[in-house]
Amino acid sequence: MKVLVTGVDGYSGWPLALHLLHRGHEVVGIDNLVTRRRVAEVGSQSATPIRSMSQRAKSVQKVLGKTLRFYRGDLCQWEFVRDLVRKEKPEAIVHLGEQRSAPYSMIDVHHAVQTQVQNLTGTLHILYAIREESPKTHLVKMGTMGEYGTPNVDIPEGFFEIEYRGRKDKLPFPRQASSWYHWSKVFDTGDVMLANKIWGTAATDVMQGVIYGTRTPDIDRPDFLTRFDFDEVWGTALNRFCVQAVLGLPLTPYGKGQQKRGFIALEDSMQSLTLSVEHPAAPGEYRVFNQFDESYSITDLAQLVVKAAREDLGVEAEIHNSYNPRVEAEEHYYQPHHENLIRLGYHHLRELRQSLTEILTDLQKYRSRIESHRHVVMPRMNFRSPDNRDPLHIPAEKA
Amino acid sequence: MKVLVTGVDGYSGWPLALHLLHRGHEVVGIDNLVTRRRVAEVGSQSATPIRSMSQRAKSVQKVLGKTLRFYRGDLCQWEFVRDLVRKEKPEAIVHLGEQRSAPYSMIDVHHAVQTQVQNLTGTLHILYAIREESPKTHLVKMGTMGEYGTPNVDIPEGFFEIEYRGRKDKLPFPRQASSWYHWSKVFDTGDVMLANKIWGTAATDVMQGVIYGTRTPDIDRPDFLTRFDFDEVWGTALNRFCVQAVLGLPLTPYGKGQQKRGFIALEDSMQSLTLSVEHPAAPGEYRVFNQFDESYSITDLAQLVVKAAREDLGVEAEIHNSYNPRVEAEEHYYQPHHENLIRLGYHHLRELRQSLTEILTDLQKYRSRIESHRHVVMPRMNFRSPDNRDPLHIPAEKA
Repeated sequence: MKVLVTGVDGYSGWPLALHLLHRGHEVVGIDNLVTRRRVAEVGSQSATPIRSMSQRAKSVQKVLGKTLRFYRGDLCQWEFVRDLVRKEKPEAIVHLGEQRSAPYSMIDVHHAVQTQVQNLTGTLHILYAIREESPKTHLVKMGTMGEYGTPNVDIPEGFFEIEYRGRKDKLPFPRQASSWYHWSKVFDTGDVMLANKIWGTAATDVMQGVIYGTRTPDIDRPDFLTRFDFDEVWGTALNRFCVQAVLGLPLTPYGKGQQKRGFIALEDSMQSLTLSVEHPAAPGEYRVFNQFDESYSITDLAQLVVKAAREDLGVEAEIHNSYNPRVEAEEHYYQPHHENLIRLGYHHLRELRQSLTEILTDLQKYRSRIESHRHVVMPRMNFRSPDNRDPLHIPAEKA
Repeated sequence: MKVLVTGVDGYSGWPLALHLLHRGHEVVGIDNLVTRRRVAEVGSQSATPIRSMSQRAKSVQKVLGKTLRFYRGDLCQWEFVRDLVRKEKPEAIVHLGEQRSAPYSMIDVHHAVQTQVQNLTGTLHILYAIREESPKTHLVKMGTMGEYGTPNVDIPEGFFEIEYRGRKDKLPFPRQASSWYHWSKVFDTGDVMLANKIWGTAATDVMQGVIYGTRTPDIDRPDFLTRFDFDEVWGTALNRFCVQAVLGLPLTPYGKGQQKRGFIALEDSMQSLTLSVEHPAAPGEYRVFNQFDESYSITDLAQLVVKAAREDLGVEAEIHNSYNPRVEAEEHYYQPHHENLIRLGYHHLRELRQSLTEILTDLQKYRSRIESHRHVVMPRMNFRSPDNRDPLHIPAEKA
């Protein structure tokens, strides 16, 4: 199959491209490379020393004897997107090319607007390009489990059958996002549903949990490393805990640490996306996959990292709960379903415990890169503040 | 009270400003005047000969002896919005300043992106301006009943209590919009909910039905007329039926004509919005009002217009169902609730039958203005087509 991966320079885009190539697919990748700049904007860098996109493409040729065709471009440019889809006519587009950080969207009004505008514009452009240039293309669009929020009922995969005042219907499950970024993903979901309704665009909408890990079989070489962010804006809680453990700092769960989320290993996320591509939605079908393996509370995660640090590094880490910069329920019910991918043959390959060993080992290896940026791990911003540029030391001009 | 009305040059913005002035409020109006240009873009004009905004402001001074402070500006300009809210610190902002046409958003990719980007950017700017400059300001935000779609269950006011798999929660009612425009209104709703959650922004979210009518007591003078659109892009079905009847054309409901919507008279919409302003949401409160009086099917409406044309004009109009350019269920259950406004003292003032007489009389008076634009009444576009510029004769450059 020919697969177009947007956001191919990103944490999951890059290993996905390699995995698809390994599986014998033809891969076209696009990226505007803006995440590298934005991570630098908040004073951070990837813990792993990643290669430039052009070096990566060269390594693919040299090591795998395959070609990754890379286009540098911006999904907000309609002509670029249209011409690319017209030229390539991919069988699938895996759309990962979005601003992916909730804290980034909460920095100030400009980051809020930029996140929502750019994410929805890119998605609309892809939907129109598919409709106009390649209507059979299957869209695999990356959403987030965070779209659902933390309701007091089970979370189904996209839709639920309900009875209300004596009548029944199958309706989209209500979305309750908790950042401008999370709402931008809800907006994408709405737009994909509409494209499916008016044009019959075949789409798989992936509600993804938090991804963790530094390794997949495909990226297990220095020139194939993928990025690993650990600052408060771009890094996940798990990433920050691992970096804190390696640096001998206390682990700092936000608030009570009882907030639960769904998690999935990077390798398993690649497995899921590849299954979605290889078992496409039928013509006219819109389907939703909740893509995660296990739910953990933030405190569970911190305790697992403490244990791994002790066993793997001989380091005794402590847990100090910090203030919570986010606006979220700290204690809540959390029971999302995830059966659709399992029905396609998905099976959990990589355990969190194993991944923790790999992450901690890799962070030890690149210790100097995190040591020099240790100040970015702790929270400085507050989701309730309308302007977080000062604590982040971001110049006050428009983003 | 000091009230800021965005979109004050529009169909409901202008009579709202006059109504608020009559009620003794101080009114500041803003508009970028873009609707006038956009109606011209599709080859149409208001059936009523409306005055320019500067003439309107002068008439207010002369006739009412009151001042309507008007700012021409764009809600997509952050500094404009921030500075205005900083300077005026209104007690309420009634936010009507959005692109309000579903067909306009479906013209092509540029109109789709423009609608969603501009609508959500304006709303985000208002939310941030309130938070940063005037946090006690009550936001009354105009949504649409169309956000809910046509589910097979009753439509509550914003939230519903459900039981799902043995557990209960009160959740936002699922949204199922049927155009890029309608989704843009859902996006606004999400952003207002989040601002309420993180900042406690007091907000009234108005899910408004289709408004009809050419008169309210406040606009009953030639220099106070509000606009009346009748083309397929900017006019409602009722408006088009009235124009067709006056021109001796058959009335053309889309498809089977069994699609139902909620309707409200212009005067009653002004009453509702004024009630919302005068009985503001409490600090930290987010409330949703479904703002309509009666539900009618499109065929009901056409038959009512036929009857009114016969009785009032002595004209025998026919009904010819046309193809349906929209993507909507043509037969469906429709039972939305509307109790919150009634609890505030709302009572239905103007009947549809009376409004039809007024509309038909006014259209007779301005007959030459619709006669010269009779070609814009019939549908030329198709919501399933990704590019409707040709049928609308819109130049192919970017919107």
